[in-house]
This record gives sequence, structure tokens and C-alpha cells, in this order.
Amino acid sequence: MAAGRDERTAVVLSVGEELLAGDIRDTNREEVAAALRELGFDVRGLRTVGDGAEEIAEAVTAAAARASVVILTGGLGPTEDDRTRHGLARAASDELVFDEEELGRIADLFARVGRAMSESNRVQAYRPSRARWIENRHGTAAGLRAEVAGALVVALPGPPFEMRPMLAEVLLEDVVGRFGPGAAPPRVKVRAHGLSESIVGERVREFMGEGADPRVGITVSGGILTVTATSHAADRASAERAVEAVGRTVAERLGPNVYGRGDVTLEEATVASLRRAGMTCATAESCTGGLVASLLTRVPGSSDVFLEGCVTYSNAAKSARLGVPAETIERHGAVSEEVARAMAEGIVRTSGASVGVSLTGVAGPGGGTAEKPVGLVWLGLRVDGVTHARRIVLPGDRETVQLRAARAALDLVRRGASGTLGVR
Amino acid sequence: MAAGRDERTAVVLSVGEELLAGDIRDTNREEVAAALRELGFDVRGLRTVGDGAEEIAEAVTAAAARASVVILTGGLGPTEDDRTRHGLARAASDELVFDEEELGRIADLFARVGRAMSESNRVQAYRPSRARWIENRHGTAAGLRAEVAGALVVALPGPPFEMRPMLAEVLLEDVVGRFGPGAAPPRVKVRAHGLSESIVGERVREFMGEGADPRVGITVSGGILTVTATSHAADRASAERAVEAVGRTVAERLGPNVYGRGDVTLEEATVASLRRAGMTCATAESCTGGLVASLLTRVPGSSDVFLEGCVTYSNAAKSARLGVPAETIERHGAVSEEVARAMAEGIVRTSGASVGVSLTGVAGPGGGTAEKPVGLVWLGLRVDGVTHARRIVLPGDRETVQLRAARAALDLVRRGASGTLGVR
Repeated sequence: MAAGRDERTAVVLSVGEELLAGDIRDTNREEVAAALRELGFDVRGLRTVGDGAEEIAEAVTAAAARASVVILTGGLGPTEDDRTRHGLARAASDELVFDEEELGRIADLFARVGRAMSESNRVQAYRPSRARWIENRHGTAAGLRAEVAGALVVALPGPPFEMRPMLAEVLLEDVVGRFGPGAAPPRVKVRAHGLSESIVGERVREFMGEGADPRVGITVSGGILTVTATSHAADRASAERAVEAVGRTVAERLGPNVYGRGDVTLEEATVASLRRAGMTCATAESCTGGLVASLLTRVPGSSDVFLEGCVTYSNAAKSARLGVPAETIERHGAVSEEVARAMAEGIVRTSGASVGVSLTGVAGPGGGTAEKPVGLVWLGLRVDGVTHARRIVLPGDRETVQLRAARAALDLVRRGASGTLGVR
Repeated sequence: MAAGRDERTAVVLSVGEELLAGDIRDTNREEVAAALRELGFDVRGLRTVGDGAEEIAEAVTAAAARASVVILTGGLGPTEDDRTRHGLARAASDELVFDEEELGRIADLFARVGRAMSESNRVQAYRPSRARWIENRHGTAAGLRAEVAGALVVALPGPPFEMRPMLAEVLLEDVVGRFGPGAAPPRVKVRAHGLSESIVGERVREFMGEGADPRVGITVSGGILTVTATSHAADRASAERAVEAVGRTVAERLGPNVYGRGDVTLEEATVASLRRAGMTCATAESCTGGLVASLLTRVPGSSDVFLEGCVTYSNAAKSARLGVPAETIERHGAVSEEVARAMAEGIVRTSGASVGVSLTGVAGPGGGTAEKPVGLVWLGLRVDGVTHARRIVLPGDRETVQLRAARAALDLVRRGASGTLGVR
């Protein structure tokens, strides 16, 4: 690997003691790597280093020796332990200079949000003399572009919502500008819910062999399954046709469990299927505590299809908000098919939505019994005048059970809206 | 950093092209780092490399030169692109040998789950001749212990539920066995909400200098600020006293914005303060779409204090569920102080909770105007017969605005319940 540097090679660096200590989960690393990969870059390493200017400099120098693009995130803040600018200067054998103009931009930013700029923000106006700024529209930490041993080295701030738009700008202006457009080997992603990895593995086995091209890979996370078909065929056009064809075959074999292609999320697919069907939706949640509504409303424009949600955590709320008869709860217990059905019917009746989904279960860690164990969830769905119920038992801790139950509810709504509910 | 190797130093390596491509978010890295840190190891780097035996060998060799413990995850599977064992052998100048006993163990595993062992699993019975196996009770990929240039090098499989118990065994038997018990340098974490990093940086500046001990570091994520004081003083007892003292000073200087110590989350602190006050809580959300309720109900036992939540996304729901007068919405708009107040009063009236919190805002990306920009959120709090309102403007994309708004609401409830609402 250290055998020098090809044109489209990259290394991604994250800076911060809190990352080394495992205190914070760094998500920038993979996000930057994926973006570079989409531009056809061979990402040769992801590395996390501490706050020291010297170790940052050392990591940048090592990365610049094996990659033509090096992207760092973190360490551009206003505090004493933000030393990426110092490390960058050292690696570039450059010195830090104070930039009045930049300080002006920072001051303007504080003025806009009506807050006083603190003295410590001054440090954010220092840059290596030969480095150029990358504007940060969402924060005070501007990014930096520098040259180290002929490699393009870019430093971006750690907060993802600040980093993201700056990364996009850098990739477009600097990376494509300098290395020309490029593309990753053609690939297709098929997303499904409610299937086990081994089942899917069996259904697509012939595409998973060693030499196979397109070759299929499977990843699973929180009940969401992703099948990726990638082709390295020399001729790009035929490679694209090939992954398309395999993608279609995979989708056919997985049937109605497939909710989308590419990077679409289950909640996006659910909102889309409601919109296509001209339907509106309302939620009645107990064990998931609002997570279903929260996932749906993460989707921009979900207000077109999502009317409201009731988080009826207490039994009193189940009766008062949804008209679930107290005796139904008494007789069958709050976690029961009868209550799930009554909740789904209640939310449709009181909200006027065309689809109503409900959840009641034991998220744990407490509250489990032999008959109603932790992980037991009853789902209800009211659509087209019919009420459906599903019983699932989910593994994992409280948060995992809640997320998987919420996704099961989303998928139930999606299939209800797309008329594939009964389909196996 | 490359200045050789101290006793308790470690490097964590992750292996896999899919990690370099950013297709999968690697969580092992931080998990292993945190576990090593708890044993008092100075984690000097986290690094992710591809599948090539050569690059794995190179990474192991480099890591072994700067750390006394190197832990790898991934690349022990049965497929062609699992080459961690090859890389390990190369780094240890050793050769792979076939281990009949291990193959027997793998065969038994397949027999137990009643599946046929595939020919490809044979490769998992190869190990560097001087390496020793680490049993995997949940999969076919056994781990490996080896020696490279005097460093302990451990390879574990990638799937977290397989890796975790094996890591625990390795840390206990090999790491503690060889380096003796140890503990992380004493540290105290102070958690706060609603303060900017730069403000806090100024208030605790004297503890942030490069030589300071205890030394304070600040991290901020989604509106949550963590100030960590760590001491490396030789005498542990005095180090503990020192970080305690600095922790207290920091907490005093940050005042009522501090919600807790250690790894407590804001939602946990909010539930705790409600419980202490003997209060119950209900939520009325618009722009956050159920996220506040969802965060509260992630906390085990939250059912003691959380009664219910209404996600009144549509204006009709605001009126129907919470009794917000339609003309109030018409006159002031759904995103307004008046509607936030009416929502908070409505949720308390209809739920009977002692605290009611409400949010209405523009989460974006659409829907912003000059007067009501994306990120504008009105919060309402009804407690002790008084209604409070707060106006905030949050930066970031939709998800960020929603998360920060939800946390602002949680903190409002926390301060309402603990009687520190007015305190600045």
C-alpha cells in the first residue's frame, strides 16, 4: 500500500481525543469515505488521531505520502484543544497567520444570530499562510485547503451539518476541479425489511461467489437489509446494464419486502407510498413512545401525508385519546391484540386519517413475563375499513426493540398503502 | 507520537473494504478503544484498512511499533476477501498452518445448528503457527492471539455480538494477565445544555492549556456540551481529588445549564428531575414530530413520569387534541408564541400532567420565510400554573433542527421541574 500514490487515492483522518477514547462515535469518517468513493477514489485508509498538533502533522504527512487527497474532520473549534490548523501548518512546513478578513466573517456570523463573539473565537481566524479558507455557512469554524507534498489536504469542522455542505463544495471545486470527474464502479442497492440475512443469502447465492461479476454483497442493520450488486467490468456501459439486471432479479426474488433502491430509507419509502396512494396517516404508539411519528416526520414534506400521532403511554391516555375501552385493557392487558386493534381503530376514527397504525409492547428492560416477554410487540393497522394485527417478538435492548418495532410499523403502513399487505 | 512505545499503549485496527468504502458504519473501533481506555491504556490511534494481506501486515507492523497492544476486528470470515490471518502471519514473520482440531470445532458448530459446513469454511481453520486461538461461541470465525515485535496482537471477528464476549475474555486473560490491572486516568465529565463551546472555553480556559493537569477538554454534539477533566498525576488518590475539584469548579461556572455528571443523557436527567419533584409530564409537539416523547421514553422507567404525548402536526389536530383556538392559529400562524403557549396549556389541561411542554417551529428545508426562517422554534412550558415561552433559532438541516429543538424542550422540562427555570 505504501508503494507510493496513484491519481485517485484518498485517506480520511478524524481528529479528537474524545474519538480515541471512544467517547464519541465519529460518523464523518464513513461519510467522507463514501463521498470520495462515489467519485471513483480508492480510499486507502481511515484514521483517527488525538488532539496534539504533532500527531496531527505526522498523520497528515503519512497520509499525503500514500494518497493524492487527504480530508480531515475536527479540531477547528475555538478552544485550546482544537489544533488541526497547527498540525496542518506543521505538515505543510508553513506558519500560521492571522486573517483579519476571516475574523470579520466570524464577527458577522455572531452579529447575525445576535450573540457576542467571544475572545477565543479569534483563534479561528488563524490559517497556514499558504492555505485557503473554505466557507462555513453554519458555524464559526471555516475549513482549510492546503498542499502537503503534492497532495490536496482539506480540513473540515467536526459537526456533521457544518461539514456536509463544505465537503460537497470541496469535492466539486477542488477534487473534481483538479482530478477531473470520476465514478465508482457501477452498483445497485436493493433495500428490504423483514427478511433474514441467511434467507436472502440463499435466494441470491449464485451472485455471491468469488469470481462473480456483478458480485452481490449483503449487509443488515436494525432489521433493514441491503443487497448491493457491484460490477468491475472494464466496459462501463455493460457494467451498468449488468448491475441493473442483477438488481432487478434480486428485487424480484425478495418480493414485497423490498421497499426501495439506493439510499432510500424505510420512512422515506413509507411517506412516498402514502403519497402515491393519496392516503394520509396517523399513529398511535405505546412502547415506541413516539418513535414512529418521529421517523415519519424526519422526512421533508411528510406533512402532506402525516396528520398526527398519539403517544398514549398511560392506559388512561389510551382510553381518553383513542377510546380504547378500559375493560378491554383490563381483560386482555395493555399489550394485547385486542388493544392494538382498538388503538388502530381509535386513531383512524379520531384523526380522520386513511391509514392508522398502532403499537403496544414490552420494550424492557423491565415488565417482561413468561407469557409476555420483553420484546413482544403487537402491531395494529387500520386501512380500507379493515383492521389487521401482527405479533412480533424482537431481540435486543430497549432502544433496539423500539427501533425495530417502529420499523415494523412503518413497513406495515407502507404495505398497507401499496396494497401488498397480504402478499407473502 | 511515534516516539516508541510505553507500557500501556494501544492501537485499534478495523479491517474491511466495505468500511473503507463507507458502506458500513464500524462501531467496533470505538467500542474496543473505550474498553482499552477503561483499563488505563493510552489509545494512540484508530485505523481502518482494506482487505489486502499486505496492507493488513503493514498496519499491524506500524501499530506494533508504537503500541504494546494491537487489536484488530474483521477479516476472519470464510470468504476470499477475509485475509486478516494472512496479514497477521506476514507481520509476525510466521506461516499459516492448518489446524484439524479447529476444523472439528467449526464442523461441530454447523452440526449444532443443523446446517452443512461449506468447503470455504476450511480456511477458518488456518492460523499463524505461533498464534493461539480465541474461542468464538457465536460464530465460525475464531479469534487469534499473536506476538509482533514484542506487542500483543489480537484479531477478533467483525460482528459485534461475536466480537464483544471475545474482547472481554482477551482483556481479562491476555491484557490484564500480561500488563496487570489498570484503570483509566481519573476523569470527571460535566454535561451541560444551552451553552456555546466558545463561552464555556473561556469560563474554563485556565484548565485547557497544553501542560495543565487536570486538563479539561470540551466536546459539543447536537447542543449537548461535555467538559471532561482528566488527571495523569502519578498519585492516583490526589489525581482523583484533583479532577473532582476541577469538576466542581466547572459545574459552578456553568451553573444551571449543567444537567449531570458522567455519561448521563439529557433525557435521563429530565426523567430524574421529574421523579425527584414528584411531577408528571406530557408533550405537545409539532415540528419535532414526536422526538421529545421518543427521547423521554427511551429512558427505562420513564412511564413513572411520562403520561402521554400529542404529535399535533396538522392545525386541525392542534385544535382537536389541545383546544388551540383556530383563530389563534389563523391570526399568529402555527409557528408563534401564542400557539406554543396554547399548546402547552392544552396538553396540561387534557392530560392532567403537572408539566406540559410544547414545540412549534420550522424544521425545514421548506417553509421558511424572512420573518419565520427555517430553524425558528417556539417552545412553551406550563408548570406550577404558569406558562413560559422561549424563542430559539437553530442552525442545521431538518434532522439537526429537530434534535436540537427536542433537547431544548427536554432541558426546559428539567429546569421547570428543578425550579431553575428563571436562573441565568
